[in-house]
Amino acid sequence: MAKKVLILGAGYGGLVCALEFRKQATASDAEVTLVNKHSYHQLITQLHETATGAKSDQTVRVSIEQTIAGKNIRFVKDTVTEIDREKRIVTCTGQELSYDLLVIALGSENEYFGIPGMKEHSLTLKSVNQARLIRTHVERCFAQYHYERTADYLTFVIGGAGFSGIELVGEFADAIPKWCAENNISRSMIKLYNVEAMPGILPGFEPELVAHAERSLKERGVTFLLGTPIVQVEPGKVHLKTGDVLETQTFIWTGGVRGHSVVMDAGFEAVPNGRSKVNEYLQALGNEDVYIIGDSCIIINSEINRPFPPTAQIAGQMGTATAKYLYSDLKGGKKTPFVPEIAGTVASLGRKDAIGRIGKSFRTTGRPAYIVKDLSNMRYLMKIGALFQR
Amino acid sequence: MAKKVLILGAGYGGLVCALEFRKQATASDAEVTLVNKHSYHQLITQLHETATGAKSDQTVRVSIEQTIAGKNIRFVKDTVTEIDREKRIVTCTGQELSYDLLVIALGSENEYFGIPGMKEHSLTLKSVNQARLIRTHVERCFAQYHYERTADYLTFVIGGAGFSGIELVGEFADAIPKWCAENNISRSMIKLYNVEAMPGILPGFEPELVAHAERSLKERGVTFLLGTPIVQVEPGKVHLKTGDVLETQTFIWTGGVRGHSVVMDAGFEAVPNGRSKVNEYLQALGNEDVYIIGDSCIIINSEINRPFPPTAQIAGQMGTATAKYLYSDLKGGKKTPFVPEIAGTVASLGRKDAIGRIGKSFRTTGRPAYIVKDLSNMRYLMKIGALFQR
Repeated sequence: MAKKVLILGAGYGGLVCALEFRKQATASDAEVTLVNKHSYHQLITQLHETATGAKSDQTVRVSIEQTIAGKNIRFVKDTVTEIDREKRIVTCTGQELSYDLLVIALGSENEYFGIPGMKEHSLTLKSVNQARLIRTHVERCFAQYHYERTADYLTFVIGGAGFSGIELVGEFADAIPKWCAENNISRSMIKLYNVEAMPGILPGFEPELVAHAERSLKERGVTFLLGTPIVQVEPGKVHLKTGDVLETQTFIWTGGVRGHSVVMDAGFEAVPNGRSKVNEYLQALGNEDVYIIGDSCIIINSEINRPFPPTAQIAGQMGTATAKYLYSDLKGGKKTPFVPEIAGTVASLGRKDAIGRIGKSFRTTGRPAYIVKDLSNMRYLMKIGALFQR
Repeated sequence: MAKKVLILGAGYGGLVCALEFRKQATASDAEVTLVNKHSYHQLITQLHETATGAKSDQTVRVSIEQTIAGKNIRFVKDTVTEIDREKRIVTCTGQELSYDLLVIALGSENEYFGIPGMKEHSLTLKSVNQARLIRTHVERCFAQYHYERTADYLTFVIGGAGFSGIELVGEFADAIPKWCAENNISRSMIKLYNVEAMPGILPGFEPELVAHAERSLKERGVTFLLGTPIVQVEPGKVHLKTGDVLETQTFIWTGGVRGHSVVMDAGFEAVPNGRSKVNEYLQALGNEDVYIIGDSCIIINSEINRPFPPTAQIAGQMGTATAKYLYSDLKGGKKTPFVPEIAGTVASLGRKDAIGRIGKSFRTTGRPAYIVKDLSNMRYLMKIGALFQR
């Protein structure tokens, strides 16, 4: 009888896993169910572009129904609330689903590090809906400024100088002249801060790439406050450890990622920030019928003895690998340990600039890096067969 | 020596007056100074279109510099703060201006009828900036709904069922399906109210036109609460005299117009709501060197013994008439009393429907009326020479 394969989450990991698994397993091998909160797959890595209106929401939403059409994958639009690994039952808001093999690809949540007020008074950037809230909020701030005339409406604070934070800062730097023109406001009125507790930006990038990024963003009006932890957030105020207070109506937090709460509550072994530990085949420790992939798990880069960053690139590779592992579980065959291959990493710095590392050692900045970024997005859409959907 | 003609306000009345006066008076007859708060003339009658994003802000802003270029009109971008009719001096934020002949065309302000909280907690629609605040506010409400999940974010209340209120309600009715689609929200979740203290909508229109408007708007989801005074407004709440409370994050007030406070403070004779009384030549009573035109003044329609409504059409005609009066003041010549000619009145009901009266008796509804509305806007732009500016 066909085994029940249940995949939770249609992000980069889950969607790729479902599609790749179906290239191998026949209907008599397995039935595949894919659960996702929304009817669309979100191109999370591009949300910084819609958060500022540089691109439309449509460009970052991919219809799941269209992507899996004709591929014998059952889609359930529902929100996962509980995973019972003893009974092998997943509870959603609207139904219960049982499984023989489970793939957890529910992504991550924001980590607020217990900083008072930060969760309550920050905007975040982990979904299309959140990006839209940022965009509409900022546009309203510009409009409101004509009435309130206080500088906090024209002050934008982005917390976190990792990948997401810097890409968002770059988009803001490029969008601000447009917003200013639309609202008859001088560029010199705007303040754009990037606040980071660590002493530098973009950890993991080579110093000359980081220097290029900093210079490029500073030239477009970004003020970096590095080595500057945030200690409290109130409505309209971001308190820094230095004692300074940034008065702003717009604080966006990109500074941390933690495991998904439903996965944490299920009791899988995890590191302190809640991302699950997995074995070399991405299986939950002690639960070989459960794979945990993407941001929901954590794997170590043994070369530097630090975790790999939670990226879409690695999530997709985990999806492909897990598809093979699942097939081996059904049909036998040796499994190969998962090792990510970092084809390259490119961080955009607004609409025209970027920094990137391609392969092990090739580094690039400026327009060429930006083009590589665009191509890699396109390559991903081709892979999931969604390039011409929109 | 050339007389100093000072025109306050570059709205429909003031701008037309300046342009028409310059067609007659030479440089040696008079020097003309036009004062306006913004660098642009605002097409106030079309603000309902930009308030919902149906048209861009650019379509309702006309550059004053471009419009008066080469016409020997001095433009002063400043805000009028005081008019001293004894000393013949107008004080602005940045300067004092003296005059021999003064034209006051400063428009009107919102009338809140002393209803508690209404001024503090309402949005209004009397400028491009206010329209943009409505648009950005509403878009943010839709985005916010994904997080708050309370119905007040999807409830829109427009107070006032006169011309401005109904035209805005029509735009909302047409924009809501677009907003719903963008935000994945079902149309059935939205509530759109029009609240009016009087028992009917669109006073001054014939009953069959009013009936068409009501039916058209109801079919598109508008709920009318007529004969229903608002007694108090709080953040998030509109209290009705019936005892009912509408919970909404978006209350827009279009229900009243009063004289401009600077004109009222100058001590010209006025009716209780502050609009100035004028003689048959639009001169302030007792001050024949001062013309008060447009919404700043009030004139009576003797056929029905009620005031003419404050419309752009009449303001423009007053501008033309005043240009002639000013010329007579300089050169002599008999003045003809001002009598408005109502070419027609068309109220749009969203993007495809309208009601209108053309001439004395021709009445029209639907698409033809809408086209007439569009044509009359275009005709106005041609008149001021701004049709091809944008």
